[in-house]
Parts: sequence; structure tokens; C-alpha cells
Amino acid sequence: MIAIKRLASSDSDFYARLDALLAFEAAQDQSVDDCVAAILADVKARGDAAVVEYTRRFDGLGVASMSQLELSQDELQRALAGLPAEQRAALTRAAERVRRYHERQPLQGWQYEDPEDGMRGTMLGQKVTPLDRVGLYVPGGKASYPSSVLMNAIPAHVAGVGELIMVVPTPAGEHNPLVLAAAALAGVNRVFTIGGAQAVAALAYGTETVPQVDKIVGPGNAYVAAAKRRVFGIVGIDMVAGPSEILVICDGHTDPDWVAMDLFSQAEHDELAQSILVSPDAVFIDRVAAAIDRLLPTMPRREVIRAALENRGALILVRDLAEACEIANRIAPEHLELSLADADEWLGRIRHAGAIFIGRHASESLGDYCAGPNHVLPTSGSARFSSPLGVYDFQKRSSLIRISPAGARTLGRIAATLAYGEGLPAHARSAEYRLAED
Amino acid sequence: MIAIKRLASSDSDFYARLDALLAFEAAQDQSVDDCVAAILADVKARGDAAVVEYTRRFDGLGVASMSQLELSQDELQRALAGLPAEQRAALTRAAERVRRYHERQPLQGWQYEDPEDGMRGTMLGQKVTPLDRVGLYVPGGKASYPSSVLMNAIPAHVAGVGELIMVVPTPAGEHNPLVLAAAALAGVNRVFTIGGAQAVAALAYGTETVPQVDKIVGPGNAYVAAAKRRVFGIVGIDMVAGPSEILVICDGHTDPDWVAMDLFSQAEHDELAQSILVSPDAVFIDRVAAAIDRLLPTMPRREVIRAALENRGALILVRDLAEACEIANRIAPEHLELSLADADEWLGRIRHAGAIFIGRHASESLGDYCAGPNHVLPTSGSARFSSPLGVYDFQKRSSLIRISPAGARTLGRIAATLAYGEGLPAHARSAEYRLAED
Repeated sequence: MIAIKRLASSDSDFYARLDALLAFEAAQDQSVDDCVAAILADVKARGDAAVVEYTRRFDGLGVASMSQLELSQDELQRALAGLPAEQRAALTRAAERVRRYHERQPLQGWQYEDPEDGMRGTMLGQKVTPLDRVGLYVPGGKASYPSSVLMNAIPAHVAGVGELIMVVPTPAGEHNPLVLAAAALAGVNRVFTIGGAQAVAALAYGTETVPQVDKIVGPGNAYVAAAKRRVFGIVGIDMVAGPSEILVICDGHTDPDWVAMDLFSQAEHDELAQSILVSPDAVFIDRVAAAIDRLLPTMPRREVIRAALENRGALILVRDLAEACEIANRIAPEHLELSLADADEWLGRIRHAGAIFIGRHASESLGDYCAGPNHVLPTSGSARFSSPLGVYDFQKRSSLIRISPAGARTLGRIAATLAYGEGLPAHARSAEYRLAED
Repeated sequence: MIAIKRLASSDSDFYARLDALLAFEAAQDQSVDDCVAAILADVKARGDAAVVEYTRRFDGLGVASMSQLELSQDELQRALAGLPAEQRAALTRAAERVRRYHERQPLQGWQYEDPEDGMRGTMLGQKVTPLDRVGLYVPGGKASYPSSVLMNAIPAHVAGVGELIMVVPTPAGEHNPLVLAAAALAGVNRVFTIGGAQAVAALAYGTETVPQVDKIVGPGNAYVAAAKRRVFGIVGIDMVAGPSEILVICDGHTDPDWVAMDLFSQAEHDELAQSILVSPDAVFIDRVAAAIDRLLPTMPRREVIRAALENRGALILVRDLAEACEIANRIAPEHLELSLADADEWLGRIRHAGAIFIGRHASESLGDYCAGPNHVLPTSGSARFSSPLGVYDFQKRSSLIRISPAGARTLGRIAATLAYGEGLPAHARSAEYRLAED
């Protein structure tokens, strides 16, 4: 029997227990941070030499120079060609589907002639440009996922990013052929087998060999996260991701085994992953609990799943589906399954979620790999204020402001009044110069 | 004579000198950071009591409770009504223009039926939702700008943010009526007269009185910046802004006084502000230098302007306008003036800039107040990867994934293959359950 928490929204202390269940603040470990600060400063100062040194030390690689830490496009293509046919076909199909969904995302620029009185000839707008160069961090070891390479690299490629540089540590020299094959499919331009804070530093500051990038994306361990946090501002970064979560809202009519397995699929990531079921049907919750107990022993990663479910999982009984939606908004889950007969009708009530899976057949696992939308999603409630990774993360906007002589006369008076009010007389005079008739 | 640097792109060490001129990395002062960490922890633990205590200590206010630190909507409206008529009209007109520009920015959701073979009944898309609650930090003292209140609050309001909470410190109890009037015009819902790391903490964690927000925007000093950096992840934040910059590209045919004053308007912000002129016309550069010398003594803020121009300003001679555009892309300036006869034609060459002012009459000062686009722009070269503040910063996306039984069969095989390849069998089985015919 697995000891997964049972909550009911009718409990007097329900919201306190729910908040305790959700509480997760990534510890910002001072010793990690100090170590990262030293590595960043060293790579900034010494470039390649420092990166090679840290890679020898941390990854146990007997390399003498950065040139030994770059993979060629040939090696990527060979990895792709060398995959078993079924894997190669699946990866290729997934890449195509992800690309097609993301091709609907690019932002478009716009401009318009200012229609107000006294503004004739004035044009305002927004210009959209891709980033020049992006760095993609791919973890080594157990969390090295080819699907993540696709999900991070394809949106950048669709955005029109000029150059995509991937870094992936290869501790003890071990390469993951699926990861390299994904890099080939996703259009990665260069791959360096480096990792940790030293790889983040190389991308952020540039070295003799590694070109400086404009933004760094991709998941990593505590050192990578701390390094990204520190270089934020010098380069752009994506969200620092927390543990993964799923929230399943079920009306009680989905096969309990399906729901149990969906909860497992989140829990198998790591011991901190969070899997929660919300249902108004108490009998159904018992059936899912029974399915969990029955299926768990059959799972290869049962120890991880058990730990995650016991630490952070929950089965929550609610009054009705409206309340389930309210709780979903409070949790703002990374993944939300609406395992409901009339899922589309409940969709309108959902304000905060990274990805919403609609209907009993929409399992998170399909979205993780090949439905098309991105699997890099806001975690730990950050769907309250952020979005899935997308093409828009690799584009940026510039405001366009063309002002005619007439427009300058109209605006100049307003600007000068406000500038004097703010104690900024040079702003005011700059505006006043443009008041004169031609 | 003001000692502003002169560079020429033909100098052998030009790019090294340019990089040195641009170098600016916000010091992350350890003592500031430690102090901020302690304040955040304290406010998180003790709520209102801690905020009141810090406000008494740092702002010298003799208050006993948080209720004395909230301003009513009445007080905001009185501040607006009490402004001199010309200021009130200018502020109102600016707010209208900013609102109208931003009304063109909201993101729209979309969805589509998956057209691929074997996917009938599958729908993919993106849902767009506003943030529930946003915090707006407004500095007290000399950098307290009503225009910034408009520029931060109006996009949030246009996005449909549910509640907008402003914090503004009032050291020694001094209120800025223009700031309060701007809050009234921009639709701010609640105003607390608190500041510093304690205000950031109150917004990020919530207290008994201050509601927890989903995102914090707005400029602040080193303590505010450090606090925002630390709470990033718990709430969203906007960019941590560096000193302001302007780059003017001029063909040599704009009135040198106009260009000098535009450089001043940036330099008057503070000693670290950066003003750079790039021109292919050496004689014109000399005329601007002469205008600077002649006009500087007439400026009330001449000491700040002189320090900024001598520290970080430059007049750069280039071979031609094409090279000027290349240099602009390398600098990725916050503000770029194309003070050119055929400015529209050069626009296509500009990839990186926060706001682009097109034509001789488009001075930055007009954009700062009332052209319409936002004046919160990426600084210190971050226009390489980020955008002006906009409505889109107060909206977020959720992926929509509705999968039909047919779609689940098509996708399930791909997903299962990849999941087994990644060593995630629960993912695979969750997909495989959905392979069965109905």
C-alpha cells in the first residue's frame, strides 16, 4: 500500500494542507552559488583554458584543448543514421509535428499611421527580429532527453535564429546518440561537449572557441540553474524550472488505470515530481488508489514513483467540477488533464496552466513527445505569470516611432510640460527644439 | 571644454575601445544581497509587522500599522484634480496616447484542427489569459517619474490584469502628486507607501494587508533590483534595468543643437547614462562637439550631464551609414535615433534596438512621454534578446491539446517508442493504454 495523501475540499484545514503540499521553493544554496560565481569569473577571465580545466576535473575527460570538445555535423548525422529504424522514424515524426505547431507561433511586426489630429505623417509600430545566436543547455546523464533537444531547438530554428549552439556534458566521455540525433534533426549548428557552470559561462561571455550567445535555454542541475540566474541580464535566460507536475481533473468515468499511469508518468521523473488527482467522485478516487497499488509493483521505476507520490502526491475529493477548476487555478499546474466527458465546456474556467490536455485520450505523455506543443512549461505555479517555451522566446520587438514635423509640434508641448514636471529640462528642450515650423 | 571621447571606426583598436566604452555589468554587491535576503525572509515570516518596522526604520515614518501605509482612491483622485491644468492635460493626453498604442498589442489565442492523416478530431492551440494581479514598484525621491507609472500600469490594465497594486516609498512622508495622479489615470487599484526590499517581499509573498501578486514590474535601486532577482520564480519580474542609453546615427544634416540636446537628455538621467553619436561626417561631429560645449553651461543639470558624457559618452566617426548600422547592432541600444534624410531606408538594417526613432523630428524625449510606445526598454545591450515592456508581459499562454481516440492511436506509437528510448516506461504505458480501439 502506497501512502499517498488524501484531501477533501470539505476539510476545515483544506487550503492550509493544499498550500503545504504545493510549497516548493528552490533552495538557493550559498555554497553552490559561491562555487558558481568563482567558475563564471574564471571562465570570463581565462576563456577556453578555464573551460578545458573544469571539464577535465568535473567530467573526467582527458582533453587538452577546446577543439577536442566540439562535435562535427558529421558526428550528429552519423548518430541519426545509426539509430534503430523505429526510433529514427519516431524522432523524425515528432520533430516534424513540433515544427508544424510552432510554425503557427511567430510574432509579426506591425505599423500604423497615427490617426489623431495634428499627427499627420507620424507612424508607430513594432518590428520583430529573431535573436542572432542562442545557446541550448542539455544535461548529461539520466536527465538527458532527446525530446528536450527538439523542444528547445525547434522553436529557435523556426524563429529564424542565426546560430544555435548546444552544450552537453559527456561525463567519462559517454555520448547519448539519441540526443545527438535530435540535434541533427532540430538544426543545431554547433555542439560542444561541456556542461555545468563552465558551459553557461562560455555561452554567456564567449571564449576563443565558443561564440557568445544572446540567450541560454534548457534545463540543468542546481549549478546550471545558479549560473543561469547569475548571467541573466548579460544574456537572456528561460525560466529556471522546478520539479515537474501534473494535475488530473477527472469526472470519475475514465479508466482508473489510465489515471494511475498518468500520475506515474509524472512521478517517475524524480522524487520531487508532483502528481495530483482531483475528482468529485469518492468511489473513483478509491479505484484510482487501488490501481496505483496494483500497478506500482509492475513499474521499473517504482521506487522513484513511490517516493514522489508519498512525498508530494495527493488524491483530492472536491464538491464538484467547478471547485476542481478553482483548485486548478490556485495550483496553476505545469500539466493539467481535463479527463472529462465535456472537457471543452470546462476549459473556459481554467485561467492558469502550462498545458491543458483536453479529453480522456489526451495524456500528458502524448504532449511530452509529439502532439506538437512545447513540453518546456512553467513549473511550481509559475503558469500564473509565464508561458510555454515558444518561437516568441527567440524573437524580440523594437518599437518604431517616426514623427513628422506636425507630429513633433503636437507631441512636443505635452512632452515638454511633463519633462519640466519631472525635473528633466534637457528632455523638455529637446522636445521644444522640434516645435518650430519648418 | 567637455572631454567626450572621440573614436573612429578606422582606428586599429576601434572595436576594443568600443567594447570598453560599452562595458557595464551591474555589480552584484554581496552586502546588498545579504541584507536583501534577510529582509525577504523576515517579511515572509512576519508579514505586516516586518514591513511596518522596516518602513519606520528606512523611510523615517512614524507609523504603527499597515493601514496607515495605504492611500485611498480618493487621495489619488485628489492628486489628479489638484494638478495645474496644463500638467493635468498633458498627463491625461499622454495616458490616452500610451493606451491607444498598447491597445494594438494584446496577444490573441488560436486553435486548429490537426490536418494530418490519422489525427481527425484532434485540436491544438494556444489560450491567452491575463495575469490575475500585478505589483508595480515606483521609486521615491529623485527617480520618481509619473511617466513611468503610466508606462508600467497602462499595459497591465490593457491586458486585463485583475488587480494592480502599486508601491511607492515616501521617505519622510513626502508624496509626489504627479505620481499619484498618474496612478489615478492608469487605473491602479491600490497604493501602498512602502519601498525597498520590504515592498518587493510584501508583493512577492503577500502579507495580512498586501495581497500576493503574480508579477512585479518597475524600476528601483540596487536593493530593489537584488530583491526582484531573488523572488524571480516565485513571481514574475521584468528586466532588471541598467543605466539608460541613446545612440544617435546622423547623416550630418540635422541641426547640431538638436543632436547635442538629445545626447544631453539621456545624460541628464544620471552619471552612468550613455550618450553616443555616430556619423560619417567629421565636420558635423565637430559642430556637435561645439554645440555641446556651448549649450552645456545653460543646462540646470550640467554637472550630471558632464559626468555622464565624460564617463560613458562618445562621438564616433564611421566610414558610411552602413557601418553606422552595424555598430548600432553591436551596441543594441535602448534608444536609437535615425536622424537621417532617408531614415526609413536604413531601418531594414537595424536588428537590435529597444526603440527606433525615425527621422530628425523623432526625438527620444517625445517617445519618453507621449508618442505612445513604451519607454521601459531593454538596456545594456539586452535589446539583443528582449523587448520593450508591453501588454504581452501581462498575458501568458497555455497550450491546448485535445486528442481524439484516432489521434491517440497515431501519436501513442511515436510517444511510446521515444519514451522507452528515454528510459521513462510509465510515459510509454500511459500512451499505450490509449492505443486500443474504442
